[in-house]
Amino acid sequence: MRTIGYAAQSPDAPLAPFAFERRELRPNDVAMDILYCGVCHSDLHTARNDWGWTIYPAVPGHEIVGRVTAVGSEVTRYTVGDTVAVGCMVDSCQHCDQCRKGEEQLCREGNTGTYSSRDRLTGDVTHGGYSRHLVVREEFVLRVPEGLDLARAAPLLCAGITTYSPLRTWNVGPGSRVGVIGLGGLGHMAVKLASGLGAHVTVLSRTPDKEADALELGADAFLVSSDADAMAQAASGFDLIIDTVPVRHDLKPYLPLLDVDGTLVLVGQVGPMDEMNTVPLLLGRRRVAGSPIGGIRETQEMLDFCARKGILPDCEMIRMDQINEAYERMERSDVRYRFVIDMASLTEAAA
Amino acid sequence: MRTIGYAAQSPDAPLAPFAFERRELRPNDVAMDILYCGVCHSDLHTARNDWGWTIYPAVPGHEIVGRVTAVGSEVTRYTVGDTVAVGCMVDSCQHCDQCRKGEEQLCREGNTGTYSSRDRLTGDVTHGGYSRHLVVREEFVLRVPEGLDLARAAPLLCAGITTYSPLRTWNVGPGSRVGVIGLGGLGHMAVKLASGLGAHVTVLSRTPDKEADALELGADAFLVSSDADAMAQAASGFDLIIDTVPVRHDLKPYLPLLDVDGTLVLVGQVGPMDEMNTVPLLLGRRRVAGSPIGGIRETQEMLDFCARKGILPDCEMIRMDQINEAYERMERSDVRYRFVIDMASLTEAAA
Repeated sequence: MRTIGYAAQSPDAPLAPFAFERRELRPNDVAMDILYCGVCHSDLHTARNDWGWTIYPAVPGHEIVGRVTAVGSEVTRYTVGDTVAVGCMVDSCQHCDQCRKGEEQLCREGNTGTYSSRDRLTGDVTHGGYSRHLVVREEFVLRVPEGLDLARAAPLLCAGITTYSPLRTWNVGPGSRVGVIGLGGLGHMAVKLASGLGAHVTVLSRTPDKEADALELGADAFLVSSDADAMAQAASGFDLIIDTVPVRHDLKPYLPLLDVDGTLVLVGQVGPMDEMNTVPLLLGRRRVAGSPIGGIRETQEMLDFCARKGILPDCEMIRMDQINEAYERMERSDVRYRFVIDMASLTEAAA
Repeated sequence: MRTIGYAAQSPDAPLAPFAFERRELRPNDVAMDILYCGVCHSDLHTARNDWGWTIYPAVPGHEIVGRVTAVGSEVTRYTVGDTVAVGCMVDSCQHCDQCRKGEEQLCREGNTGTYSSRDRLTGDVTHGGYSRHLVVREEFVLRVPEGLDLARAAPLLCAGITTYSPLRTWNVGPGSRVGVIGLGGLGHMAVKLASGLGAHVTVLSRTPDKEADALELGADAFLVSSDADAMAQAASGFDLIIDTVPVRHDLKPYLPLLDVDGTLVLVGQVGPMDEMNTVPLLLGRRRVAGSPIGGIRETQEMLDFCARKGILPDCEMIRMDQINEAYERMERSDVRYRFVIDMASLTEAAA
């Protein structure tokens, strides 16, 4: 199927319209019209090849909400007209221990990314949600539950599951004391989801600017990390800290905030971090971990949880042709808290 | 009570005989003759004030085996003639949540170190096991079970519990895949204890030199960490890695060895570590943690476990007046695997 999208052709070129083919339906494939696509920092990193693994032309986008237009002969879970979603993965080996546990994000053979990855059967490059149509095998298609605002649901597929998964892995619930570092796309979802799970949530920020926003998002408290007295008072006060900061930074100020056996889980930065010091880890049996998105079963659980609790990201809707401007604003952290592309704008502008 | 020990008077002075007072027995105190004292890297760091918190004169030693010579009026657990042991702590608040759980090493008010610390009642400086006599409150006295070779039991009190505690915290048992980095005092105990708990144990070392020793200590396998092919083959193969390296080092080669949800636990280095990279943490939901000695209940459990299993450190016995030479040899890693001072040599030499 011929479709249209927005692609980066090289690390320094702006995204621009790009016509390409979506594959003919395999028996287990679902075809969809894309309605909305969230804009994730990973999209920008991939477009610019910041991580060195981009395959050009690259069509980013892995926070996808769409409507089913056709299904393969063996598809049983979806039918034409269903409202569905796709996140960061479109395939995995399906037979390793992690896949069998529903942890496809940890597939022993590596999962297949929604974009700038290689189809497991043909080796063709995968293209993401900055496009009109998408074809994905049904095991990687999520159902958007009734009651979720479609225009705002898209960022749940990456920002949502990336913060929900560690909250579940580390058993956050009523009574848990959760800290959130960084109030961007991931951070604001971490606040809403942790709060929805019943935790006491504190947002940590270098300056007091975001206090009102943090409380409005559902945080119970706000801690200015440059305030040494406040930080000392908060020592040993957290069971879990979700660190969403997407750049190299220093963990030393944050580790003493963890209680005994508490964990700081990194979900933002992909790459080097500043020098560590073992003293707070040793003295408090504290822990540092990482967590990558989440499995398909857990992603569906998160969507259902958000529908039940009325949890949605705060979004700014944009047209497809505003994507380069949106990237510039993301780099200045000038978005509250996630851009979402209304894909109807692509049809109008580029058809 | 007047006693004699060996003390450092300043960071660059060799240890030398030092006469001082042990306190009169409080109602809950136990007095003992020290029979043996292990020589820990922390002793050397404290003598030289490497961590900046030494109070001079400093009498090191926190791997202590002794025989009870007198007990206070309220002591119920010990009587004269009992064979007992003292480790790294001699007091804690006894009322916080951690103390109530038997995790005195994590006392909210900080535990009282066996040496170069301050008595909680008087503020007097504590002096350790490089001495003839010791007085300790009974809650911090361990019982040496029948059948443990007294001359070799001393290092269990720090090297033993420091490696046993994380093995228990992370539920190591039959089927666990445990790696041990560094084959010194702590490392060789980690091998014996993990093996005793039924784990499959691999020693990691930069060079192949120690393979025969590792296997003789009970390791099932040996992995040369400078062999890139062997390291790649071993990826995702460990549930727990105990890192006993006592100096700044780089975790990057080791993190990919952890399986999903696996933990590398630091027990050796106290201070800065090289720059980290989040990629192996994120991709495998891997974890880095620290662990400090262990609680009194767990230390007793470890002593009983070692007696039952016949687990003892490999020791080289020295006289008290050989301590400065022993420190020099420790700095060259020239000891297999722990020096133990026969305290009878102190009486003879310095009385």
